Amino acid sequence: MIIVQKYGGTSVGSIERIKAVAERVAKTKKDKNDVVVIVSAMSGETDKLIGLANQIALNPEGREMDLLLSSGERISAALTAMAISNLGFKALSFTGRQVGIITDDAHTKAKIEKITGKMVKKALAKGFVPVIAGFQGVTETSEVTTLGRGGSDLTAVAVAAALKADLCEIYTDVDGVYTTDPNIVPEARKLDKISYDEMLELASLGAKVLQTRSVEFAKKYDVPVVVRSSFNDHTGTLVVKEDRDMEKVAVSGVAYDKNQSKITVTSVPDKPGVAAKLFQAIAGAHIVVDMIVQNISSDGKETDISFTVPKSDNRKALKITEEIVSELGAQDVKLRDDIAKISVVGVGMRTHSGVAAKMFGTLAQHRINIMMISTSEIKVSCIIDSKYTELAVRVLHDAFDLGEGKKGRGKSKG
Amino acid sequence: MIIVQKYGGTSVGSIERIKAVAERVAKTKKDKNDVVVIVSAMSGETDKLIGLANQIALNPEGREMDLLLSSGERISAALTAMAISNLGFKALSFTGRQVGIITDDAHTKAKIEKITGKMVKKALAKGFVPVIAGFQGVTETSEVTTLGRGGSDLTAVAVAAALKADLCEIYTDVDGVYTTDPNIVPEARKLDKISYDEMLELASLGAKVLQTRSVEFAKKYDVPVVVRSSFNDHTGTLVVKEDRDMEKVAVSGVAYDKNQSKITVTSVPDKPGVAAKLFQAIAGAHIVVDMIVQNISSDGKETDISFTVPKSDNRKALKITEEIVSELGAQDVKLRDDIAKISVVGVGMRTHSGVAAKMFGTLAQHRINIMMISTSEIKVSCIIDSKYTELAVRVLHDAFDLGEGKKGRGKSKG
Repeated sequence: MIIVQKYGGTSVGSIERIKAVAERVAKTKKDKNDVVVIVSAMSGETDKLIGLANQIALNPEGREMDLLLSSGERISAALTAMAISNLGFKALSFTGRQVGIITDDAHTKAKIEKITGKMVKKALAKGFVPVIAGFQGVTETSEVTTLGRGGSDLTAVAVAAALKADLCEIYTDVDGVYTTDPNIVPEARKLDKISYDEMLELASLGAKVLQTRSVEFAKKYDVPVVVRSSFNDHTGTLVVKEDRDMEKVAVSGVAYDKNQSKITVTSVPDKPGVAAKLFQAIAGAHIVVDMIVQNISSDGKETDISFTVPKSDNRKALKITEEIVSELGAQDVKLRDDIAKISVVGVGMRTHSGVAAKMFGTLAQHRINIMMISTSEIKVSCIIDSKYTELAVRVLHDAFDLGEGKKGRGKSKG
Repeated sequence: MIIVQKYGGTSVGSIERIKAVAERVAKTKKDKNDVVVIVSAMSGETDKLIGLANQIALNPEGREMDLLLSSGERISAALTAMAISNLGFKALSFTGRQVGIITDDAHTKAKIEKITGKMVKKALAKGFVPVIAGFQGVTETSEVTTLGRGGSDLTAVAVAAALKADLCEIYTDVDGVYTTDPNIVPEARKLDKISYDEMLELASLGAKVLQTRSVEFAKKYDVPVVVRSSFNDHTGTLVVKEDRDMEKVAVSGVAYDKNQSKITVTSVPDKPGVAAKLFQAIAGAHIVVDMIVQNISSDGKETDISFTVPKSDNRKALKITEEIVSELGAQDVKLRDDIAKISVVGVGMRTHSGVAAKMFGTLAQHRINIMMISTSEIKVSCIIDSKYTELAVRVLHDAFDLGEGKKGRGKSKG
């Protein structure tokens, strides 16, 4: 088998941890597998570098940030390759460029366009363990880029797809994917199996175990992904194509996301092209808009538009919105940071009715006001006041019977 | 003018220092110069990375070391570019690869083979300040290499040569080149001017202000180099082609080097090819041999060979020598680490006689035994017991009248 193993920041967070990673790689090699390793920067390293940059400039150029930040993964790749060699296995470190990870030029959040992987394939063929610096690539014009927070997951899945790997293991500091955050709900259960679509919803909703784009990539190229802990030998959670078993349960998890801000534009003239103009401008600044809600006012001439953006982009989005608004003749723009998005997710929703009704009812019962609603085929999300986040998660987790000892997907040892 | 400015580790050792570098660059730009900046890793960074590697493996692969160590300069290049941009000047950071610094594949001590400099020239033409990560290059096959300790000096001089720069300023934490180490001799004088050849001898003799290979490069391509402090506005020491003024003084400086080890092979059969075999093997391991002395024994059939190598390579050199010795039928190999090389340097030696005699006499007068002697046109070096290093430097500095208030090149404001 070809197994891609990705180790996150805490998994390579110290020399001892890097040695433990090398032991796990050695074990996988001894089991007659070809292993490709992807590493993140040692935990704290990326934040340290960002801290240095922020002491110099408030808004450093993305291009310079990328050169700066890509160093962290290079360091851990070199150290991990040394640790594997030291156990008697041949290992070679590779940068994003050496792997041939070609991206667009959206610095600090670049998208992978292709992976050649020539040097990696050659190294594998010669019996080496390639150790790849995650999170980074280069543009066609040889500029260093990074793939955004959690980008090493994307490197891992993309490399697994390029190499047609049999499995992509994502090693982290938790045992897998849970029905919800165990810090909020202690009886949260680990799921043995989850579909790409559910994982995608959970990831985009703030469950931090897997970066969203990496799940999209895994789904697109059908890469089986396992999320597991590098601190023990538990089996983790398998992320795969949907199967019938998964539909037996209406809801598989409750997620929350406090990293969103809400922008509301009031009294927008209700004519064609208004929304397009606004959201094209925001997209042009590489800001990802999540939920959008539009209400028609009583007289039908004006409308309110509310939308959410990542908190880190809120000032930028606000500024763009204000510029557009003055052009459009809209009345006012408001920004709210104290919001949270609470979501219930499950492929079972397609066959179980009343999930949304149950969710709204449960929140109402606890006097939690809903500001925005958004639904997909397998998800219902509500924006609420952020101070009710934990309460909402707990009561919904309970309402959908997701806890330990309850019926659910976690118990079926798939 | 095109001015290349190289800032060493202490000059970019903190955020405050990096901001001070940016101010100096801005000032040079305001004086209507094109500026190219080369930076070392922040002081302590390279040692920290080496420390991490050594915790993992005793002899990490050179290739992995290079990926590891090259990160330090990338970080300071990105930060310095940000700091310059923050002052309102356009700046772009570049890696060794982006500058097109092509080296051989002698990892951790690679030699520059060529510099294309395409991206840098383009950036300069557009009014940017290119900020280049020193100390690094890539091989033709895209492997990352580093140029050895002090390699950023070489990057600076080589880039200056490639760009046909008018001046290459090496910023460090001392005011320039001194007649000897002021820590040992407080009355040591700063030289205003020194020839490439003298600087070359001083650098190779352990004066740490400029890396040897960078001086060779500067001499070869006739790059005027200034060594000066980034902590003040003193004029520094100009390193240029020899002129008549320089010959007025017999000796311009006294240098010492404690980083050498002496290896002695006793009772080597005195036949052709013996020395060649030994030193070819050592050169093949990329170890630089400095002094070589061979004595014929009384009967003319056997010989002793002594030579010095950098202390960091002494175990490797000893091992190679022992292997050759057993082949050659020589008797014994001895390694001594407690030695120092003391040298007097000056282009004036060519016209002033008796420099060597005066040096030997002065050492003898203070009962310092000489183990090996080596001379060049402008230098006399002696290997002595390392415990006499400071004494020897002081008495020679005094014997050749080099101190403050004495006659000498330092006082002529050239």
